[in-house]
Amino acid sequence: MSNRGKLYGIGVGPGDPELITLKALKALAKTNIVAFHQAEGKKSNALTIAECWIKRHQQLLPFVYPTTTEILSPHENYEFILADFYEKISKELRYYLDNGKTIAILAEGDPLFYSSFMYIYNRIGNEYETEVIPGITSVSASASALGVPLCYRNQTFTVLSGVLDQLTLEKRLAVGEAFAIIKLGRNLDKVRTAIYNAGLIKRALYIERATMASERIISLCAAATESSPYFSLVLIPGISWN
Amino acid sequence: MSNRGKLYGIGVGPGDPELITLKALKALAKTNIVAFHQAEGKKSNALTIAECWIKRHQQLLPFVYPTTTEILSPHENYEFILADFYEKISKELRYYLDNGKTIAILAEGDPLFYSSFMYIYNRIGNEYETEVIPGITSVSASASALGVPLCYRNQTFTVLSGVLDQLTLEKRLAVGEAFAIIKLGRNLDKVRTAIYNAGLIKRALYIERATMASERIISLCAAATESSPYFSLVLIPGISWN
Repeated sequence: MSNRGKLYGIGVGPGDPELITLKALKALAKTNIVAFHQAEGKKSNALTIAECWIKRHQQLLPFVYPTTTEILSPHENYEFILADFYEKISKELRYYLDNGKTIAILAEGDPLFYSSFMYIYNRIGNEYETEVIPGITSVSASASALGVPLCYRNQTFTVLSGVLDQLTLEKRLAVGEAFAIIKLGRNLDKVRTAIYNAGLIKRALYIERATMASERIISLCAAATESSPYFSLVLIPGISWN
Repeated sequence: MSNRGKLYGIGVGPGDPELITLKALKALAKTNIVAFHQAEGKKSNALTIAECWIKRHQQLLPFVYPTTTEILSPHENYEFILADFYEKISKELRYYLDNGKTIAILAEGDPLFYSSFMYIYNRIGNEYETEVIPGITSVSASASALGVPLCYRNQTFTVLSGVLDQLTLEKRLAVGEAFAIIKLGRNLDKVRTAIYNAGLIKRALYIERATMASERIISLCAAATESSPYFSLVLIPGISWN
């Protein structure tokens, strides 16, 4: 048992490499293997954020997503493909951990907030010594970059996925006072319509790649209709108090 | 103009001093004055978190809350007292900034997420060069400390204030899949009842002072009925997927 490795889930934050915590840096420095998710043929976002903190002697371990869209037919395949993917990753990680390797899994933003790390954590987190180090979310980063307080006093703050259908979005935008809408991608047109129908379009702010060098703040109306980058979101801040 | 100071809003994170970002530390090191809120006769929470990073030459500037409860009679007084408080602070900060001082205002968690910094930011943020550095929220910290993923895939995540009345809490707990309830204090009994009535009591987790040395994880039922510490919250994580 004592020769088994430790698993870290490390939040690398939203994009600016300096928006990583000291605790994350200290943990990262202790690891033999640095793992991260990436799309086929693309560089990992988490690796891009954290690579300036990774040393030459650390082994890089990419997990290449078998698919990056949920739009498959039949729909059930997505869940099966992903479950299989995470089972294979878990098996590989068990091998390294059993052989005494200490492993960091990098997560953009926060590891327990809409992250792929959670699926690995749920599979092997109880089998090995595991530590999760929280990170700055894209929601907090976007508020700072846009310069807007998110929510005041006793306001309700709600995070919605742009993948939800328009009617559900509209219904959920009718409850509460402040919102962030993530996972825009090809859903931007639908999201914009839902916000308009909910009477919130004048308060909605749009941002791409908050805190990254390529950060872009444009009006929600000016944002491309076809598709938004992965790192984009809409904030609807609460109405200011006092 | 060039001799005017700069204002930083710095998120110091949830409690563990190492859960501060490199960016926050670099900004903090540049400041002449370190300001923070505190309750009368109590040490500032934000100062307690960050004090190991503050140098001897930096001037400490406490803002002592005129009241820490909203329960006043007549109710309108609260808003008036607080507005007056923030006006006085803003005047003092303008004086220092006009005299070339660079100032950090420390905020527990994230400066733009239910923080007192926002009221100062809204008053003088546009008058001076201002930079907000996001921080790890107590919500992210609690998920890590409890070891639970907060929300999966397209689940809705909602942050509720325990100050809301029971019926409103119950209605809002009926919409969405994952929740954090903050500002428990004297509201814990009411919050527990609302969670029970919403059918979510079995999924609710309670934590006090996440990531602080005095962190305590107990069942929500075992938590004291009279009052919870300021740094306590309830998480109702989304049901796990895959």
